[in-house]
Amino acid sequence: MSDSIPNVLAERYATSAMRALWSPEGKVRLERDYWIAVLKGQRDLGITVPDGVIKAYEKVKDQVNVASIMERERVTRHDVKARIEEFCDLAGHEHLHKGMTSRDLTENVEQLQVFRALLEVRSKCVAVLAGISRRAAQTRDIPLTARTHNVAAQVTTLGKRLAMFGEELLVAFGDLQHLIASYPARGLKGAVGTRLDQITLFNGDAKKASELEHRILQHLGMPAAFNAVGQVYPRSLDLQVVASLCQLASGPSSFARTLRLMAGQELASEGFAKGQVGSSAMPHKMNSRSCERINGLHVILKGYLAMAAGLAGDQWNEGDVSCSVVRRVMLPDAFLAMDGLLETLLTVLNQMEVFEAVVEQELMRYLPFLLTTTVMMEAVKAGAGRETAHEVIKEHAVQVAKDLRTGTVRENDLLSRLVLDERLTLTTEDMQRLVEAGKANAGDAPQQVDAFCASVAAIAKEYPQAAKYEPGVIL
Amino acid sequence: MSDSIPNVLAERYATSAMRALWSPEGKVRLERDYWIAVLKGQRDLGITVPDGVIKAYEKVKDQVNVASIMERERVTRHDVKARIEEFCDLAGHEHLHKGMTSRDLTENVEQLQVFRALLEVRSKCVAVLAGISRRAAQTRDIPLTARTHNVAAQVTTLGKRLAMFGEELLVAFGDLQHLIASYPARGLKGAVGTRLDQITLFNGDAKKASELEHRILQHLGMPAAFNAVGQVYPRSLDLQVVASLCQLASGPSSFARTLRLMAGQELASEGFAKGQVGSSAMPHKMNSRSCERINGLHVILKGYLAMAAGLAGDQWNEGDVSCSVVRRVMLPDAFLAMDGLLETLLTVLNQMEVFEAVVEQELMRYLPFLLTTTVMMEAVKAGAGRETAHEVIKEHAVQVAKDLRTGTVRENDLLSRLVLDERLTLTTEDMQRLVEAGKANAGDAPQQVDAFCASVAAIAKEYPQAAKYEPGVIL
Amino acid sequence: MSDSIPNVLAERYATSAMRALWSPEGKVRLERDYWIAVLKGQRDLGITVPDGVIKAYEKVKDQVNVASIMERERVTRHDVKARIEEFCDLAGHEHLHKGMTSRDLTENVEQLQVFRALLEVRSKCVAVLAGISRRAAQTRDIPLTARTHNVAAQVTTLGKRLAMFGEELLVAFGDLQHLIASYPARGLKGAVGTRLDQITLFNGDAKKASELEHRILQHLGMPAAFNAVGQVYPRSLDLQVVASLCQLASGPSSFARTLRLMAGQELASEGFAKGQVGSSAMPHKMNSRSCERINGLHVILKGYLAMAAGLAGDQWNEGDVSCSVVRRVMLPDAFLAMDGLLETLLTVLNQMEVFEAVVEQELMRYLPFLLTTTVMMEAVKAGAGRETAHEVIKEHAVQVAKDLRTGTVRENDLLSRLVLDERLTLTTEDMQRLVEAGKANAGDAPQQVDAFCASVAAIAKEYPQAAKYEPGVIL
Amino acid sequence: MSDSIPNVLAERYATSAMRALWSPEGKVRLERDYWIAVLKGQRDLGITVPDGVIKAYEKVKDQVNVASIMERERVTRHDVKARIEEFCDLAGHEHLHKGMTSRDLTENVEQLQVFRALLEVRSKCVAVLAGISRRAAQTRDIPLTARTHNVAAQVTTLGKRLAMFGEELLVAFGDLQHLIASYPARGLKGAVGTRLDQITLFNGDAKKASELEHRILQHLGMPAAFNAVGQVYPRSLDLQVVASLCQLASGPSSFARTLRLMAGQELASEGFAKGQVGSSAMPHKMNSRSCERINGLHVILKGYLAMAAGLAGDQWNEGDVSCSVVRRVMLPDAFLAMDGLLETLLTVLNQMEVFEAVVEQELMRYLPFLLTTTVMMEAVKAGAGRETAHEVIKEHAVQVAKDLRTGTVRENDLLSRLVLDERLTLTTEDMQRLVEAGKANAGDAPQQVDAFCASVAAIAKEYPQAAKYEPGVIL
Repeated sequence: MSDSIPNVLAERYATSAMRALWSPEGKVRLERDYWIAVLKGQRDLGITVPDGVIKAYEKVKDQVNVASIMERERVTRHDVKARIEEFCDLAGHEHLHKGMTSRDLTENVEQLQVFRALLEVRSKCVAVLAGISRRAAQTRDIPLTARTHNVAAQVTTLGKRLAMFGEELLVAFGDLQHLIASYPARGLKGAVGTRLDQITLFNGDAKKASELEHRILQHLGMPAAFNAVGQVYPRSLDLQVVASLCQLASGPSSFARTLRLMAGQELASEGFAKGQVGSSAMPHKMNSRSCERINGLHVILKGYLAMAAGLAGDQWNEGDVSCSVVRRVMLPDAFLAMDGLLETLLTVLNQMEVFEAVVEQELMRYLPFLLTTTVMMEAVKAGAGRETAHEVIKEHAVQVAKDLRTGTVRENDLLSRLVLDERLTLTTEDMQRLVEAGKANAGDAPQQVDAFCASVAAIAKEYPQAAKYEPGVIL
Repeated sequence: MSDSIPNVLAERYATSAMRALWSPEGKVRLERDYWIAVLKGQRDLGITVPDGVIKAYEKVKDQVNVASIMERERVTRHDVKARIEEFCDLAGHEHLHKGMTSRDLTENVEQLQVFRALLEVRSKCVAVLAGISRRAAQTRDIPLTARTHNVAAQVTTLGKRLAMFGEELLVAFGDLQHLIASYPARGLKGAVGTRLDQITLFNGDAKKASELEHRILQHLGMPAAFNAVGQVYPRSLDLQVVASLCQLASGPSSFARTLRLMAGQELASEGFAKGQVGSSAMPHKMNSRSCERINGLHVILKGYLAMAAGLAGDQWNEGDVSCSVVRRVMLPDAFLAMDGLLETLLTVLNQMEVFEAVVEQELMRYLPFLLTTTVMMEAVKAGAGRETAHEVIKEHAVQVAKDLRTGTVRENDLLSRLVLDERLTLTTEDMQRLVEAGKANAGDAPQQVDAFCASVAAIAKEYPQAAKYEPGVIL
Repeated sequence: MSDSIPNVLAERYATSAMRALWSPEGKVRLERDYWIAVLKGQRDLGITVPDGVIKAYEKVKDQVNVASIMERERVTRHDVKARIEEFCDLAGHEHLHKGMTSRDLTENVEQLQVFRALLEVRSKCVAVLAGISRRAAQTRDIPLTARTHNVAAQVTTLGKRLAMFGEELLVAFGDLQHLIASYPARGLKGAVGTRLDQITLFNGDAKKASELEHRILQHLGMPAAFNAVGQVYPRSLDLQVVASLCQLASGPSSFARTLRLMAGQELASEGFAKGQVGSSAMPHKMNSRSCERINGLHVILKGYLAMAAGLAGDQWNEGDVSCSVVRRVMLPDAFLAMDGLLETLLTVLNQMEVFEAVVEQELMRYLPFLLTTTVMMEAVKAGAGRETAHEVIKEHAVQVAKDLRTGTVRENDLLSRLVLDERLTLTTEDMQRLVEAGKANAGDAPQQVDAFCASVAAIAKEYPQAAKYEPGVIL
Repeated sequence: MSDSIPNVLAERYATSAMRALWSPEGKVRLERDYWIAVLKGQRDLGITVPDGVIKAYEKVKDQVNVASIMERERVTRHDVKARIEEFCDLAGHEHLHKGMTSRDLTENVEQLQVFRALLEVRSKCVAVLAGISRRAAQTRDIPLTARTHNVAAQVTTLGKRLAMFGEELLVAFGDLQHLIASYPARGLKGAVGTRLDQITLFNGDAKKASELEHRILQHLGMPAAFNAVGQVYPRSLDLQVVASLCQLASGPSSFARTLRLMAGQELASEGFAKGQVGSSAMPHKMNSRSCERINGLHVILKGYLAMAAGLAGDQWNEGDVSCSVVRRVMLPDAFLAMDGLLETLLTVLNQMEVFEAVVEQELMRYLPFLLTTTVMMEAVKAGAGRETAHEVIKEHAVQVAKDLRTGTVRENDLLSRLVLDERLTLTTEDMQRLVEAGKANAGDAPQQVDAFCASVAAIAKEYPQAAKYEPGVIL
């Protein structure tokens, strides 16, 4: 009986681009490239590497057999050693890993995984921003009942609501850009961070050791390096990375939660996949499964944040490996969850439906209440005393609210009642005018949509391919 | 290029017993047994099930093809439907899942996984308690420098220190027993918890529906059931489960951390596996890798605790599936991590070494300081004035502490200095007597060891097989 | 300019009963009682305590001057010493704290605070259960649209929904009872847990030292004591306590969240305080402020859970004080938050309003969809072919769903359409009959309410005073 | 009996500068300044404000009576209303809060508290960096046994170890600078974020409303504003802030933990306050209370991070107040904890002592092991066969390690043994030379110290006052 267990986030939610970064095969590939880059750098800086050796490694570097490596590890009880042996046996040489300690390999390669995964997240965030922007522009002017405390408060527009959640992502995106632009690699610093091992390899020539690190950074494509580190880079950097993912997921999560609320009011739904049909027995039941998943994936991210926080500030001396098992779980899984979240969100953005008639009905249920101040001013203009107007409106408003709750009326007829009340002299036409004006009374909402879309457009221009990304089919 | 990613906790740390509970295959098996149990119960309570149908299901129930099921899910976009179809196609019948909704299946089967995993954890905790007890009994009387603030404070015994961490686990074990004895299943409650679907199946006979649930509980072997639930059971139950794991892991984690500290003082080491040899270049370097792993796995558990907390108290109405993805990750992974933690701990308990000579050296470095009060009383008995004795002892103690720090002396010679000081009249023999008494001055420490061992013995008697469990080889 | 900052949870949310347990004055009182109990115990077991000394302490024990104690601490830099000096100076004696270390005082007194606070939480949970039970009984039979995925799914009753959240609390209450019944005190174990200091005080008589601890436990009223501990009791006990609070708060939190959802649908509101009036301009705006607060307080509890988890499993050797500052914050604040949460919930339970007419309207909007299977069976009985009936019903159901969303109709007229369709032969009377039956179709919901109420009644009988508790006025 | 409870973080750990920002009085002051700024802005943009009104407010703005405001709140059940009334009554006018909703006040003022608190944290981080840099420069060349897995690994320098922890803070400092430079205010956006209320006040002139917001931002001194928000600003911004504090605290926390480890080896101590004297009975017992407190405060910060994470991504529609109670607790307390952490750290940096002789002893215990490779090369140079040399060295090294653990020898005499072994031809002088070279063999450690100090110097130049800050007396 097989009891192998796949990584559920990878299998069910993440895309192959993100999986490739974190799969065992993918990591072995990154490591081999890295080892070869180090070897080339050493050669170029004077270390003897016989002819053909580098070519031999390059030739076999794509022959990745994870099971064989695992077999070796069960013998050596040392994962890096196992991978060195495998690669060397394949190449028929033993020139790898000179002057390196395990962490010279693993820290940097894991950081490379993190760094490339951040780039992948950035790409997908661009696509999400583009998607929100497109939807917000389409619905820029659709009046919508804004709710606070889950109760009608004022008029906004649907586009503005979308832009609001988009803006949260936009701010987080700016921070992601800062993180990417400043992300520091640990570098080739040896067993305790003094760079002794490479310096020794270069017979005490610290400049060459430093130059080698510089070249390796270029190979990695990372923007900076730590100066003084121990065996490991500070784990608060991982905390920053995972916190950044949590922050990036917050706008999407609030959007998803709000769409679930809107679905409960039948204002909108997350839609169905093309070809998917709702149940005929339950034609009203368009479950917000994808939005719920987005919220669930956010909870998962927060759990990995707790793991990252559990490691930060817990370094003993120059470091140890109590973080090892945590990072094996937390780093891939946080990125796989984030990837699934963004992919799901892109699908929702593509498929979501707005039921404008219901949106209008909702607004007409609350608008009369929202208009009472305006009505009072109109009534006064039309000749009523301020006190009287206030009194009359209050009396009817409270009664209508009560009647709606007791089922005495089904629709908000406050304005008709006010027209009928002879203490005021307002006409049906007056009221219709007020309603029309009221619906449009969303302040700067449309302008905010425009500003949001302009910001996104600038980003989309910088990353045109990413902005055009279309999600695959989700489960 | 393959980018499949295994569950790293399952692959590297957990044992096959725990993996079997959480593997996709394992779950399919549990589900099929459950479906068959429901079908039998329904038949026995009067629902028509043609002859041969149950046998047909039973015949194929072990033909588990996860890939085929996954293929179906990609079409139906419904995981339960996919698994029903697969099982029915294999059996050539469609009698499964009558009057059931998805959650009637998944909630109960997932709870069964949790429940059995709790039993597995209990077994392994018994083995750990037995291991600690064995080690504590062996070292019951070895005097050890107890430290507070990481600084020598009083004398204890090594056995007592072990019993102290064991006792933390013992208390958590009592709570685990309560959890196991009271763990409530959701039961066959239908789509929103009213049991409507089964009642309908039984033509309105609520008693039969209730009786069916009762039988299914017996099949599951779980001790209780919820009365009023929604679509799902309350997620605070998951919180309790994961909190229980965190609590159980705390004594082990403190033990592991303290062993890492002791290794830093060379008082002890976690040992090597049989046949494993330390580096000749670094013969002192016995890295506490396993203890570090235990601490890391505890950090992981706390992350899953954050996920469980993120779900608790977040039910909307009768429930939805925003918890789904979280529980797919958190429940298996928390148990896999716990399993790995306990397995690693068992290995450490088997292999750990104590360096008694170094333990003795440490004690002799601090014991003179710890004895100053006793020395003063002796000096007074021997005729010195109280004031004088206090003054003399203080003077020398402070000087010795200073001399040790400045390297003027390498060993604590306070007692010799006091013998030499003529203001007191204490002899070397007096001092040796005090030292011997001082070493034994661990209060009730040995008695506490005995009490701890007695408690563990009672548990071991209840679970004799579990107490004898020997860990497999760890990575 | 004053910059003193009050504890916001104490000041704004907690009740005076809970504040009294955690205030600096309250703690000083508990400590003094404890010291006196130790002194009496020591005297009774043979330690010389001059006549009048205990009386002198007892006479001044209520003269608590926190500022004076703080002043002393700023000099001594030792909080316990400062409190000993204050008490001794007041009494004019120095017989306190004999053979005790700081932790012999603080661990036990802090545990006493925790233990009494747990009793206080238990009391208030009883009141909450009684409140939910009362409300559930009142609404036992009111048909309500049960929602999953926030979308109508089946019929339940309002009472059942309340009982469902109550049941979550009921299960957590059982676990609280276990915790209270097994909560172990650290006891008088001395500086490193060996009980050496008291044994020394009793001239090596370990039995007397043990007997003293036994008496002190009786003074504390706590059910058990640890056997082998270090300087501190294991911090996983704090984790269990805070986890228990989180678990207890989960049912209430889900209830509050669902009431916020229901308020958004105008099905119910959390109500207003007596005398409080809604805004006349916004008569529909009954904000769920109290329910939101309940959800907020639950988030706070989860933060303290993270702190508790941060301490568990982090003991070095026999312990140190890295937990000190955390426990000063976490323990009081977790209980103050819990107290505020329960007090707020009691207020909501008293004041919440159900708008039955709107509940009915909601049901009538969805019931026709929920009845389609029944309608089909009726149609077949009335002579229609199964295929035809299915086809006809599906056709109309999908169209009605569409018409509702496009605003073509405002109410669900599916049943009328089916009556009008000549392919079926169902009458209006048939349909009315089905609707009435459908509304009542909540399965065992009423019976589940009864079972829940019976469980609560048993608890209320055990704690009659607690069950009658009425909340004070909340902010 | 008084049961008032102070904020323990404020009272015991934070400095008055930070307390002033978060005290109720402090907040009232900030609010009043803000209201006056809005009023001035409105007046300047054309809203009628009678002469003398602003002066009247300004005259009384420092008359802050928190108790009186609280009294009002208990009546109105509305905290903002209570504060408006108090201020207006004091001034004798009612011109405050025009066109504003509560959140137009509270969001911005709370953000101002956060922003100023971030500036305060920045200042103190500069002081900490300066302190670490000073210490690192002093100890730049002191050879120290670097440890990985808490076991000796290679040589580093003490200065490098300090710089390593400093560098972690340095990286986090860069991110703090980014946060400060980009921190966006919510602005004057009205009840649902459309800015409707101010636009209405300005009779529909959106430009004026926008200009008012611009002026208020300048009053606040904050660098940016959100464009599209709801009633509240996105709570992921709070998450970013608290995550930033956690990240900033990580280097200090690892430093504190390592100093606790070093104290356990008597390599260093956190020192005593001037005038404070160690116990004469326990002259070796210099407890790392302050370092333990730093670690404890970090755990606290991580708890507030969990609270912040609990709010992020949980916005319903345009927002509600379920975050209110959480932010009342989390925001002040996170900053108070951070302030206490940094103040404690500054004290430790001032008072810490290094025991160089013990540092040297430790190194001499391990250096021979660390030198085995070099010894082998020397032996070969001196004529021994490679195989023989390897064999001989291994034999002795393993034996010495064993002898140290069994107490057969107390000091590492490996090099003497090798000199005595005739299979090699190394002399005592050879060995002394190797030892001297070995001690200095810390690779680039000193250069890394220099680079770290240079980075800090550049920051100190930018914030010269902050760099000179001296901590107050801590408890």
